[in-house]
Amino acid sequence: MRVPIHQDEQRQDLLRGRLVILQKKDGYRFSLDPLLLAAFVTLKKGDRVIDLGTGSGVLPLVLAHTQAAAGAHYIGLEIQPALADLAARSVRANGLDGAIKIVTGDIRQVRARFAADSFDVVVANPPYLPAGQGRLNPDDQRALARHEVSLTLPELIHAARHLVRGRGRVCLIYTSKRLAELLALCREQRLEPRRMRLVHPRRGADAELILLEAVRDAKPGLRVLPPLYVHERGNVYTTEAAAMLGENAPESGGPEGRDP
Amino acid sequence: MRVPIHQDEQRQDLLRGRLVILQKKDGYRFSLDPLLLAAFVTLKKGDRVIDLGTGSGVLPLVLAHTQAAAGAHYIGLEIQPALADLAARSVRANGLDGAIKIVTGDIRQVRARFAADSFDVVVANPPYLPAGQGRLNPDDQRALARHEVSLTLPELIHAARHLVRGRGRVCLIYTSKRLAELLALCREQRLEPRRMRLVHPRRGADAELILLEAVRDAKPGLRVLPPLYVHERGNVYTTEAAAMLGENAPESGGPEGRDP
Repeated sequence: MRVPIHQDEQRQDLLRGRLVILQKKDGYRFSLDPLLLAAFVTLKKGDRVIDLGTGSGVLPLVLAHTQAAAGAHYIGLEIQPALADLAARSVRANGLDGAIKIVTGDIRQVRARFAADSFDVVVANPPYLPAGQGRLNPDDQRALARHEVSLTLPELIHAARHLVRGRGRVCLIYTSKRLAELLALCREQRLEPRRMRLVHPRRGADAELILLEAVRDAKPGLRVLPPLYVHERGNVYTTEAAAMLGENAPESGGPEGRDP
Repeated sequence: MRVPIHQDEQRQDLLRGRLVILQKKDGYRFSLDPLLLAAFVTLKKGDRVIDLGTGSGVLPLVLAHTQAAAGAHYIGLEIQPALADLAARSVRANGLDGAIKIVTGDIRQVRARFAADSFDVVVANPPYLPAGQGRLNPDDQRALARHEVSLTLPELIHAARHLVRGRGRVCLIYTSKRLAELLALCREQRLEPRRMRLVHPRRGADAELILLEAVRDAKPGLRVLPPLYVHERGNVYTTEAAAMLGENAPESGGPEGRDP
């Protein structure tokens, strides 16, 4: 479907052109992270899914496309009105209006907006640099997406706990540097870590990211999957990563190309 | 040095015969775990090291041998007098009396026995099956070594916190199934997880063990090393594992050969 595109925006093909994502030419652009998370999440028939901090909507768009058989219903929550508008137009451009609803709102205010226990699955690719740490991006959109300017990790986990039903799942991608903090916070909120995968830029390199599935009110017992390697020698994607990203992945840098 | 060996005991060569370990023919026998942990630990000159639950003393024996340059001083604490006696004779057999002292005692009673902050490094290969879970070994020694019959994970972490000095290190090998619990407990005791490595029986298999280094009162920030694979195809050790284990490793089964 044709949708209006502003002068400062461009169309980005994804998954070999089967999806189109609108992006700002400058400012916030999505990274590989939501694509890796989409491949980690497994949805069940009719799941109600909410993406906390959806940005340009990549995560629900990719999930709706790659796991279409689940017929899930998605809400993408985004605090920045301009990004929410962009995401909503991407949803229309892909004819996914029936499955995905983009909502403008603050993750810290979900109690006022959504009933407790109202989602089967909560997904998020939260900012993971503590506010004041690391190089702050001069562009506001990027700063909000990558730094905890307006959202801390405890706030995110508390929001997820409010939204997810008993035995429902919370699936996150996050920096492995803060793995201990993340696991401890999840346990405090009775979101029991059940499945985890470490993402390494290449064999022999330290991990940079973790994929985590926590289940509300579940018994302890964590399954640690084989690691995911993003690149082979040089800058070529591994077969597994390439399958997750499609041939024309958004950026060649991989997770290690992100902000320090 | 020649030491008395009882009829129900045997000598086990380790690290190509450079170390000899006395073991019960039946009953508790050490596994690969302390050898993997010994390779993960890095000691500094003159470190005071305590091994909580030393069993037959493998961990301090291997550390004293492979990291001899550090000139560290070791205490091996073991609750079972018969095992402590066995470990002490192994120490003598290897001429390491000057470096390693085996002490009979209960990890839950360390406050009465050792001053706070009195060690630079605490190491442990604790039992990791909750009491009452899993197949309880009919042999008492094995049950004590592998199940939380007389020691829970919180008790171990509390003991480690008492013993280790500020900025000192706690190094553990533990089941990855209980990773979330372990990390949360460490953080509660201000033992900040700083370095972690997952141990997979082979490529493509889930992790079974984690190696963890926590530093008392350190800032958050976890480094996740590349995974350690124990076996190549079949039952052959990987080059990296073989280097840690020596050519005549104690058991061919690897970590996955342990109790369920």
